[in-house]
Amino acid sequence: MTIETKSLARSHGGTQGVYTHNSRTCHCPMTFAVFVPPHEPGAKLPVLWYLSGLTCTHANVMEKGEYREAAARHGVIIVCPDTSPRGDGVADDPNNWKLGCGAGFYVDATEAPWASNYAMYSYVTEELPALVAANFPADMSRQSIFGHSMGGHGALICALKNPGRFRSCSAFAPITHPMTAEWSRPALEAYLGHNQASWRAYDAVALIEDGARLPELLVDQGTADSFLQDGLRPQLLSDACASAGIPLTLRMQEGYDHSYFFISTFMADHIAWHAGRLKA
Amino acid sequence: MTIETKSLARSHGGTQGVYTHNSRTCHCPMTFAVFVPPHEPGAKLPVLWYLSGLTCTHANVMEKGEYREAAARHGVIIVCPDTSPRGDGVADDPNNWKLGCGAGFYVDATEAPWASNYAMYSYVTEELPALVAANFPADMSRQSIFGHSMGGHGALICALKNPGRFRSCSAFAPITHPMTAEWSRPALEAYLGHNQASWRAYDAVALIEDGARLPELLVDQGTADSFLQDGLRPQLLSDACASAGIPLTLRMQEGYDHSYFFISTFMADHIAWHAGRLKA
Repeated sequence: MTIETKSLARSHGGTQGVYTHNSRTCHCPMTFAVFVPPHEPGAKLPVLWYLSGLTCTHANVMEKGEYREAAARHGVIIVCPDTSPRGDGVADDPNNWKLGCGAGFYVDATEAPWASNYAMYSYVTEELPALVAANFPADMSRQSIFGHSMGGHGALICALKNPGRFRSCSAFAPITHPMTAEWSRPALEAYLGHNQASWRAYDAVALIEDGARLPELLVDQGTADSFLQDGLRPQLLSDACASAGIPLTLRMQEGYDHSYFFISTFMADHIAWHAGRLKA
Repeated sequence: MTIETKSLARSHGGTQGVYTHNSRTCHCPMTFAVFVPPHEPGAKLPVLWYLSGLTCTHANVMEKGEYREAAARHGVIIVCPDTSPRGDGVADDPNNWKLGCGAGFYVDATEAPWASNYAMYSYVTEELPALVAANFPADMSRQSIFGHSMGGHGALICALKNPGRFRSCSAFAPITHPMTAEWSRPALEAYLGHNQASWRAYDAVALIEDGARLPELLVDQGTADSFLQDGLRPQLLSDACASAGIPLTLRMQEGYDHSYFFISTFMADHIAWHAGRLKA
């Protein structure tokens, strides 16, 4: 459970750190970023998890997400994991950005060659929370989660599969129903095999159909997002939430695309929304 | 005077664009970024120039500088030029990050092989302002300028050499006296030749010593900046301003380094400071 500090930088009155550790879950070194806002000595702070999208590492949102000002103002720790295992000996499909490194999809793979390392669901819900609890001034009784695209999918399934753990869940342009979207279905098949019943455990719409519930959801989605109709399909989440009685606030943001220019625009608003629930 | 749009993205209610054009000053294609905040049709908005530091392009501050929220709130256009000419036929010193591409130092080079393309002073003070005036809803009677490191140096000399053009000037960790700093002196010699008299026209401290004046200056400088003592030396600017009667607000920011984690922390504050003067 030791972590190595790769870099520390003061920012917005707090500390943006990057850390590595040898993951017993993914069986490789893993890197993650943590922003600790300014706080009184001895204080324990709520934790907001941010899961990133396809092709990203921990660094993209750390550099482009513009989360530190709001996190500092609200006194919330932000944890940004990587999106997959990486490195020597880790299976990859280098010519396919939707499978392998950068595309862990937050599942625990069961199929060769992926099962050896690709256990991102257990990594972000078990191993990394234990590391955060042990190494940062974190109040693990107050956690929330959000993410973007593949990471929005990740946030939704982590919250749906762990009722009561997260005070709140939100997403930017999430993949709502990955098992039926062309850009994500091949990854689920590669990681989980041909039996689609196993895919339903990692699919927000399917989890809701199968009975999982959340007290509420907040989703922002750009109308100029090139992945909107084929990959993301917020209407499927909206329909599932309506059927299940889950209050969903789905905000279609006129003219916004899928980029960090979109994410950063609504970042402070999401952090404020989570902070209200983390401090209630 | 035609520009080509490379990308447009909606962000913080405005538009972040990236553009290229064939520069008649630098004799190569040049790329720059412009953020236009939300505004009423027909409105003309003040322009705030941001000059970037060594190794950067237009993209670094666009991605990591966190300027859009404040620029949108204050209704200010932000223009981010590249830091040098680039491309086929442009002289470079690829193994030296302090000379050539990414290191134009905002001078008009007079020496071979640099003089053919390296005219960044004329580029950012003449050619690009004309393009901005012609292509964006810009009120060129209301301009201000700031920058970081080499770009802080650039902002200072542009303001000092053009009295009355800029309503205000500020800098993050500027190179205050490049002709005597080891990391910048070789570039000035390469670009401008051995006669140090010509260097003084592109050196903030020397310009002030030689009579240039500004109504006021704002500088933020991190105390944990690894370039502080040898490269940046804010005390030299402080001494020159004191002798010249220029009111300088020099804020030593405890624990901050030279990175965008530092810049982004104080970005909104600088934009608010400029906006107050642009709208006065």
